[in-house]
Amino acid sequence: MPPVDKTRDRDKRVPDVTVARLSVYARLLATLQSEGWETVSSAMMADRTPYAAAQIRRDLAWFGQLGTRGKGYDIRGLRETLDGILGVDAVRRVALVGVGNLGSALLGYTGFRTRNFRIVAAFDTDMRKVGRTSPDGVRVHSMGELPAVVAEERVEIAILAVPVPAAQSALDAVVDAGIRGVLNFAPTHLQPPPEVRVSTVDLAIEMEGLSYYLGRNAQQG
Amino acid sequence: MPPVDKTRDRDKRVPDVTVARLSVYARLLATLQSEGWETVSSAMMADRTPYAAAQIRRDLAWFGQLGTRGKGYDIRGLRETLDGILGVDAVRRVALVGVGNLGSALLGYTGFRTRNFRIVAAFDTDMRKVGRTSPDGVRVHSMGELPAVVAEERVEIAILAVPVPAAQSALDAVVDAGIRGVLNFAPTHLQPPPEVRVSTVDLAIEMEGLSYYLGRNAQQG
Repeated sequence: MPPVDKTRDRDKRVPDVTVARLSVYARLLATLQSEGWETVSSAMMADRTPYAAAQIRRDLAWFGQLGTRGKGYDIRGLRETLDGILGVDAVRRVALVGVGNLGSALLGYTGFRTRNFRIVAAFDTDMRKVGRTSPDGVRVHSMGELPAVVAEERVEIAILAVPVPAAQSALDAVVDAGIRGVLNFAPTHLQPPPEVRVSTVDLAIEMEGLSYYLGRNAQQG
Repeated sequence: MPPVDKTRDRDKRVPDVTVARLSVYARLLATLQSEGWETVSSAMMADRTPYAAAQIRRDLAWFGQLGTRGKGYDIRGLRETLDGILGVDAVRRVALVGVGNLGSALLGYTGFRTRNFRIVAAFDTDMRKVGRTSPDGVRVHSMGELPAVVAEERVEIAILAVPVPAAQSALDAVVDAGIRGVLNFAPTHLQPPPEVRVSTVDLAIEMEGLSYYLGRNAQQG
């Protein structure tokens, strides 16, 4: 059993997969709340996620005694706790590097806004794009302006939506500007310094999950 | 210990997180092969992935006795086995629905091609886009042509890159055309029939992972 003292969670290494599941639980709780529920059991959460009730209880136990045995979890309280753990209880300010097709799509992605991530500035090397403003009012700056804009706008996270050959230099630029969290869309392995966390979104991994299940069904059918 | 009889893997429910890790292992093996290695131990794989050696051995044991105790895994053989399990040892034919900014970005995404996913046709409701051809020669069709093109092109997987209000009807259309695997980029919950698998890409979940780690570092620093 993981320890239940919430103040100790800084000292523990919560697995990445657990953190990813917390995001799923937070989404489910928002849905349940909108449906009018006030409490929820781990069994009910298991019915509406891909995870077993024991797994859910174990994940939540990393962060202390959040539920009451036999009564379940208070939805509003658990939701606030999870959002606090995930650091999305306040707005996180984000910079976008690369305003091509993908970058333009990300500027309009509503899934970021509903989880408190706000893209506050964009950057591109193409001077024809610099000075433009997105439909939501985000201005495109030159790469040279990155350090000043990141400081002024208090940016914490950068999204890299640049081609593979430009990805490492874009990473170096945002790291030099003081950013510690990077979401990378270029399908390549980047080398960050140890204090910087890079998550590379690999869209083919989700496709391989589908491919695996298509193969299973074909064998069974 | 999971059973080691490979022929039984259709009867087992391999967890989604295990399948996702297999994709990571397959990528690492390709890298190791290009570096000239012929065998690899689970300890060496652990050094170059976020996963522990015991985890890696447990994941691979789902699919039989793939390694030799004390010698490790034959890289070429393990890579072929994993690609076969994931169903990416042959080309998977994919249809793209929605040729906006995101769809256009996905048409050029090299990460699909290197893993044997080939977008062979695109669809859009905007008649100004219909009839155009992407830089890679993928033609944009009207939604009405979907059943005929899916059959003719032997499409197995659909990518939905449409706005939230259009997502469910796009899903219904590809399901009616006989597609059983769907990668959905619209940040909304879709209702597929039971024989169809939908993976919704939630980009905010990766951002929340970053946010969680930024919070930890701030507390520790």
